Amino acid sequence: MTDFFKGIEPVKYEGPETTNPLAYRHYNPDEVILGKRMEDHLRFAVAYWHSFAWEGTDPFGGRTFERPWFDGGMDAATVKADVAFDLFALLGVPFFCFHDADVRPEGESFAESKSRLDAIADVFEKKMAETGVKLLWGTANLSSNRRFMSGAATNPDPDVFAYTAATIKANMDVTMRLGGANYVLWGGREGYETLLNTRLGQELDQMARMLSMVVDYKHKIGFKGTILVEPKPQEPTKHQYDYDVATVYGFLRRYGLEDEVKVNIEVGHAFLAGHTFEHELALAAALGIFGSIDMNRNDYQSGWDTDQFPNNAQETTLAYYHILKAGGFGTGGTNFDSKLRRQSVDPVDLLHGHIGGMDTCARGLKAAAAIIEDGTYDAFLNERYKDWQGAEAQAMLKGDRSLEEIAARVEHEGINPPLRSGRQEFLENLINRFV
Amino acid sequence: MTDFFKGIEPVKYEGPETTNPLAYRHYNPDEVILGKRMEDHLRFAVAYWHSFAWEGTDPFGGRTFERPWFDGGMDAATVKADVAFDLFALLGVPFFCFHDADVRPEGESFAESKSRLDAIADVFEKKMAETGVKLLWGTANLSSNRRFMSGAATNPDPDVFAYTAATIKANMDVTMRLGGANYVLWGGREGYETLLNTRLGQELDQMARMLSMVVDYKHKIGFKGTILVEPKPQEPTKHQYDYDVATVYGFLRRYGLEDEVKVNIEVGHAFLAGHTFEHELALAAALGIFGSIDMNRNDYQSGWDTDQFPNNAQETTLAYYHILKAGGFGTGGTNFDSKLRRQSVDPVDLLHGHIGGMDTCARGLKAAAAIIEDGTYDAFLNERYKDWQGAEAQAMLKGDRSLEEIAARVEHEGINPPLRSGRQEFLENLINRFV
Amino acid sequence: MTDFFKGIEPVKYEGPETTNPLAYRHYNPDEVILGKRMEDHLRFAVAYWHSFAWEGTDPFGGRTFERPWFDGGMDAATVKADVAFDLFALLGVPFFCFHDADVRPEGESFAESKSRLDAIADVFEKKMAETGVKLLWGTANLSSNRRFMSGAATNPDPDVFAYTAATIKANMDVTMRLGGANYVLWGGREGYETLLNTRLGQELDQMARMLSMVVDYKHKIGFKGTILVEPKPQEPTKHQYDYDVATVYGFLRRYGLEDEVKVNIEVGHAFLAGHTFEHELALAAALGIFGSIDMNRNDYQSGWDTDQFPNNAQETTLAYYHILKAGGFGTGGTNFDSKLRRQSVDPVDLLHGHIGGMDTCARGLKAAAAIIEDGTYDAFLNERYKDWQGAEAQAMLKGDRSLEEIAARVEHEGINPPLRSGRQEFLENLINRFV
Amino acid sequence: MTDFFKGIEPVKYEGPETTNPLAYRHYNPDEVILGKRMEDHLRFAVAYWHSFAWEGTDPFGGRTFERPWFDGGMDAATVKADVAFDLFALLGVPFFCFHDADVRPEGESFAESKSRLDAIADVFEKKMAETGVKLLWGTANLSSNRRFMSGAATNPDPDVFAYTAATIKANMDVTMRLGGANYVLWGGREGYETLLNTRLGQELDQMARMLSMVVDYKHKIGFKGTILVEPKPQEPTKHQYDYDVATVYGFLRRYGLEDEVKVNIEVGHAFLAGHTFEHELALAAALGIFGSIDMNRNDYQSGWDTDQFPNNAQETTLAYYHILKAGGFGTGGTNFDSKLRRQSVDPVDLLHGHIGGMDTCARGLKAAAAIIEDGTYDAFLNERYKDWQGAEAQAMLKGDRSLEEIAARVEHEGINPPLRSGRQEFLENLINRFV
Repeated sequence: MTDFFKGIEPVKYEGPETTNPLAYRHYNPDEVILGKRMEDHLRFAVAYWHSFAWEGTDPFGGRTFERPWFDGGMDAATVKADVAFDLFALLGVPFFCFHDADVRPEGESFAESKSRLDAIADVFEKKMAETGVKLLWGTANLSSNRRFMSGAATNPDPDVFAYTAATIKANMDVTMRLGGANYVLWGGREGYETLLNTRLGQELDQMARMLSMVVDYKHKIGFKGTILVEPKPQEPTKHQYDYDVATVYGFLRRYGLEDEVKVNIEVGHAFLAGHTFEHELALAAALGIFGSIDMNRNDYQSGWDTDQFPNNAQETTLAYYHILKAGGFGTGGTNFDSKLRRQSVDPVDLLHGHIGGMDTCARGLKAAAAIIEDGTYDAFLNERYKDWQGAEAQAMLKGDRSLEEIAARVEHEGINPPLRSGRQEFLENLINRFV
Repeated sequence: MTDFFKGIEPVKYEGPETTNPLAYRHYNPDEVILGKRMEDHLRFAVAYWHSFAWEGTDPFGGRTFERPWFDGGMDAATVKADVAFDLFALLGVPFFCFHDADVRPEGESFAESKSRLDAIADVFEKKMAETGVKLLWGTANLSSNRRFMSGAATNPDPDVFAYTAATIKANMDVTMRLGGANYVLWGGREGYETLLNTRLGQELDQMARMLSMVVDYKHKIGFKGTILVEPKPQEPTKHQYDYDVATVYGFLRRYGLEDEVKVNIEVGHAFLAGHTFEHELALAAALGIFGSIDMNRNDYQSGWDTDQFPNNAQETTLAYYHILKAGGFGTGGTNFDSKLRRQSVDPVDLLHGHIGGMDTCARGLKAAAAIIEDGTYDAFLNERYKDWQGAEAQAMLKGDRSLEEIAARVEHEGINPPLRSGRQEFLENLINRFV
Repeated sequence: MTDFFKGIEPVKYEGPETTNPLAYRHYNPDEVILGKRMEDHLRFAVAYWHSFAWEGTDPFGGRTFERPWFDGGMDAATVKADVAFDLFALLGVPFFCFHDADVRPEGESFAESKSRLDAIADVFEKKMAETGVKLLWGTANLSSNRRFMSGAATNPDPDVFAYTAATIKANMDVTMRLGGANYVLWGGREGYETLLNTRLGQELDQMARMLSMVVDYKHKIGFKGTILVEPKPQEPTKHQYDYDVATVYGFLRRYGLEDEVKVNIEVGHAFLAGHTFEHELALAAALGIFGSIDMNRNDYQSGWDTDQFPNNAQETTLAYYHILKAGGFGTGGTNFDSKLRRQSVDPVDLLHGHIGGMDTCARGLKAAAAIIEDGTYDAFLNERYKDWQGAEAQAMLKGDRSLEEIAARVEHEGINPPLRSGRQEFLENLINRFV
Repeated sequence: MTDFFKGIEPVKYEGPETTNPLAYRHYNPDEVILGKRMEDHLRFAVAYWHSFAWEGTDPFGGRTFERPWFDGGMDAATVKADVAFDLFALLGVPFFCFHDADVRPEGESFAESKSRLDAIADVFEKKMAETGVKLLWGTANLSSNRRFMSGAATNPDPDVFAYTAATIKANMDVTMRLGGANYVLWGGREGYETLLNTRLGQELDQMARMLSMVVDYKHKIGFKGTILVEPKPQEPTKHQYDYDVATVYGFLRRYGLEDEVKVNIEVGHAFLAGHTFEHELALAAALGIFGSIDMNRNDYQSGWDTDQFPNNAQETTLAYYHILKAGGFGTGGTNFDSKLRRQSVDPVDLLHGHIGGMDTCARGLKAAAAIIEDGTYDAFLNERYKDWQGAEAQAMLKGDRSLEEIAARVEHEGINPPLRSGRQEFLENLINRFV
């Protein structure tokens, strides 16, 4: 262990009654929920970037955090890796996630950047072996460097497209080497600042081409993980092409990629797109593209990405209900793409943030499982839709009736359907019984 | 003419300098723009519902308008039709739009409602022949009656689905008879109030089935118009399935309907979905599903549908630029799905609203045409993307290069693309030169 | 009892483990919290309008509810009152609230409307005596009737101002007679649809004049209750003059009314103004104008007033914490200005809505009390600000130091303050320990 | 001249027909509008920070601009000043604005920072004398340095309060020396990230104390300019204490500062607070606290501060109408607190941004003046409110009638006011006649 977290002991489960702020009150990795260990359900991952690379800046202020690895070169990057694995160990999380720009300083050339990434991957490989921590996913940072200011794959300059392709390949290679369970693409700059300077159709074609090459390369190298796209509606650009789950689905269909690519859904991105998180989860499940989640909420009244740790068990209950109904995570997991508030300058704050987030998720998982085990809720849904099981209803739904046949029946039978209560208040109370 | 608009003369074009508030300052139907009459470009339509059926209510207050046809039966419906065609004539618009619930009182049974609709269609047929006013589109109101409170096609009760099918058929029949240029579906209640009581996947399948039957029926009866879906993100329901253009596109692709159905894009709905109107236009054009528009803006700071007449020429300029670049309207047109403010209680206010809206559109059309004729703007766009015309760039875009080939070239050539200004401020100024 | 709620028994407290959806799981009126009965802390009131007068309409659809008193005259109004008091009794709430337009049909003239109000007040008086249910507050509906379309007190027509004054007087008289604990003014139409037709300064003066007359009249008749203004930012008008707590405070100060008038804060209105509910509560307390609450939340992603029952205990915890710290309600209470969803058409849904809301509040009250009794949280706050207790800090704060004296000290002492963590994540976890 | 803007000639007025993108099409400084030179009406100022200190970063990406003065010390600061005055000269603007952190690198101690500020002020003094460019306002940056992360005047640490006081004094001294027309306070960190760690009442008292000391010091040193507070609702903090004009007014009244302090209103901040810019202008005028403006708009669909140059003449028309009606600027002016888009990396983009912004303002000013000279609009407003000039109406407004007297009259006279159209559409068209 480094002395960055000096004096902090590994976080243990102490149960709901503990007053120890550095203990889990709900996350108990070995507890069995619906026949599976809690750890295996939740598959928590710490995000390298927000926890170790972010400096506490915001658009109106500079760095607030003091970390020994800031402003350093490759040596500092190694120190950073040491501290990161210290945190993983203290928390007892099974996974982490990273992108290249977090883990190594940018080089003078593409080749140098790549060789630095490979060098850090060596460090990771050793630490992963020592600690048993695994890689949930790798990704390429295609948004921070100014070369991507007008887009990465969607840049008007084909050289930036090429640079993007090379960067993704390097990150896929490292993800493969480290046994990553998924590879993620977040289109940070894939969108536009102003439609005035943008050929939308051309840029969508470019984006699709890149994604197709990624899928081809995955198969070529035998990567078994899932390729994930992460939707977000806006910020940093005014409009992002991967707006939300429905938009990504339409894009995948258009370019024939819907069987190859799934989505990594972030709570806050769902919110900024005008949706609830559970909507995006349920929709992705219905469309067959649910992959993984970034479990960081957004302030309800801030119009930018606030990336906060989850802290409301009601919300996580609804989320894990839909995840459980979708069959749980396959290769995916619960990543905390969450950052500390910039005033939370102490190392211990990294513990508070993750402990609170993990406990809130654990609470939600347990409540969701209880809802399913209780069965009242699912029975309500069955009852609500049960008339669609009737023969004539099935005939309509399956396409065995035409508009004019149905119209004739309505007129002939004088159909005038009675009202049935939607029972929203009852259902809200029912769910709250388990939260 | 009835005496509802007594004292108001037909509105004439008097040019930008007129101070007559009941004259057009910009809309000059016979003026030729880019080789086509302005009227034929804009294809204006008055919406029956907001102009003649809406009573001036809002969620916090009752009827403010006093119209002789309110609270009446079929006789009143005929008076309403007379006044409506008076307005069409005064304005000199070539089109109108309606849905069943605007034009006839609801009957006791489906059959009675239908026969009333047919009776009003007789009235319309005669008036259309007399005045030369045409039908831009017909549609069914599947949101106002309480039977649709839990959805129309997406209702948990298959009898409501059936009732919906019958209602759509009746409206398609009338639209066909009246020579409508399009038939529109707006999913007012196709969505959910709470995901808690909703099976999203089931409901999407129901909605697709209905749309498929509509397309089949169109072909069966030989309707030559376009089937249009109108996106809207929320309100009346918390979530609507036809959220925005991208969502509708994904839905159409999923169910194989993308060559049969286009979109009717509303300014205010685009805004409520987090997009600019021009974004939705450009996207629909790129996806090949652009159909028609509802030219009513939303207040920028109100989170509900305010349905106001357009009044900002800069916005209409950008809109008609994209419409012109998409080849203009085919069967579509510029419908004013706009309502008066509820304090605008006088008949003359209907004139002010439409005159202002039409002038704002005409101003935008002329500016858009000027931008195209000038050519500076399109030349800028060509220049910005010109490197994609290079051989290697085309090879990448067409799929003739793999990720690893491109990566090798980046490394080998030491590619490090320079920054190029996006010129947003220049472009904004350039556009303003024509507004 | 009428047979409207036939088969429904009075709602009892059965504890958290009950599966009876028509029992309280957390609201136990006689349970003592911080030395006071829960009922006396919470002071629940049912709102007459949403529960008995609202018809299930929305801007896109008509009435969904079927109530025997709709469309009737004074007889129906009496039936409505009977059913209302049945609900109060079933729920066991100590209070109700009403405005004139809910309780009696509008008359042909002001005099007739007033005499109908008086007649219903007779009914109420008798029922209140029988049941022990009390009036939390009365108010006048100055938004629904079309005469108020351009404002009530702020109307450009002084006759509407006069009509408003007369209406308020009638409602104050009835509130006084029924022993109301408060009188509320909600400026439903006090604002503007467009600044273009509005003299903002003139209208603010009109509004202040009305409020001053209300205060004078209160003293004249010896009304002992509190005069409350209810802030709301927008809807029905684009801009409302009583935007939020800070705005109302500035208004009261400007016209010298800050010691006479307090605020009735609604959860959803706070949200629509860009604030959390707890912000508005804490601010009102700091400014000395905290009065009462309307405990209905807004959907986070809908931009209009959704008026939903509270269902998130974390939110009610923060609210009651600030209410308890402000000394609790004086004359105020917890009114549910909540309406059922329009699909909740059954009488029993009124029970589900209120039971869920009351339980969520009770849960929040208990958690807030536990936070206070635990003391960790308040100790944290004391510690965070403790340096302001120092002599030099107090001298600065009290005005005993000038800018230049302080500047000289900074320079002389080389002051360079160290960073201290704001501990947001720790605090969020701490609060969650009690939710 | 430095060679930063090499090849760019001073910008001249060439009239609306010019196609030269580096000429003014509407801004003609010497043109007389309503009896005053356009330059004296508009009083344009360039903001030092966005134009010279901002690096093109956003929360997801680093510096895009390359400026020779980045990363340098005092020498670089002097180069920056040279280039800044080059831009002022090229544009022909009469004013600039700055805060300390823009113009000099932070020192190791307060004393060093202050002496560097003084040294740059020497440079400015000389350049101002040479060019005739004047200082519209100075201000202190109390948000960027991490010492202010938990607030400046509102910090829980009184040492930060002291440091803030010293910093403000230094900036006021420099502003005084340079003949600044105003001194501005923007409470960048005066607010909270979470109410959980905040004593709102205590912090408001701290903020008031600081402002009182500023006012005292102004009088002590004989500064003749205006003290201005700049409202903003949120960002960087979740809640900012200077939320909007109404909030600032209430704050000033509470602490007796309403005659000493005015507001500097920013377009984008108004928008983020849920208001139109013209609302904030009209309200400030009505409350007697209108001071100056920051003329940078916000994207309508982005929830963070986008600080864009104005480009919509309709909006600037409404703004300058209210400014003209308020008597025009006194000591205030039109500051562009606008930044280039981060893709606008070339020096010439600084010209495009300012030219477009200035032309848009000039266009608005001319339209607003035309509206006033035409008189139709003001006559409409007079007519709408004219009944308030009647004797009985005045008696009500002035406080000579009580609630019961008015009520008696309503009942006695059977008052039942008729509806009058609010004419919103007519007015929107009328305004557009001049845009």
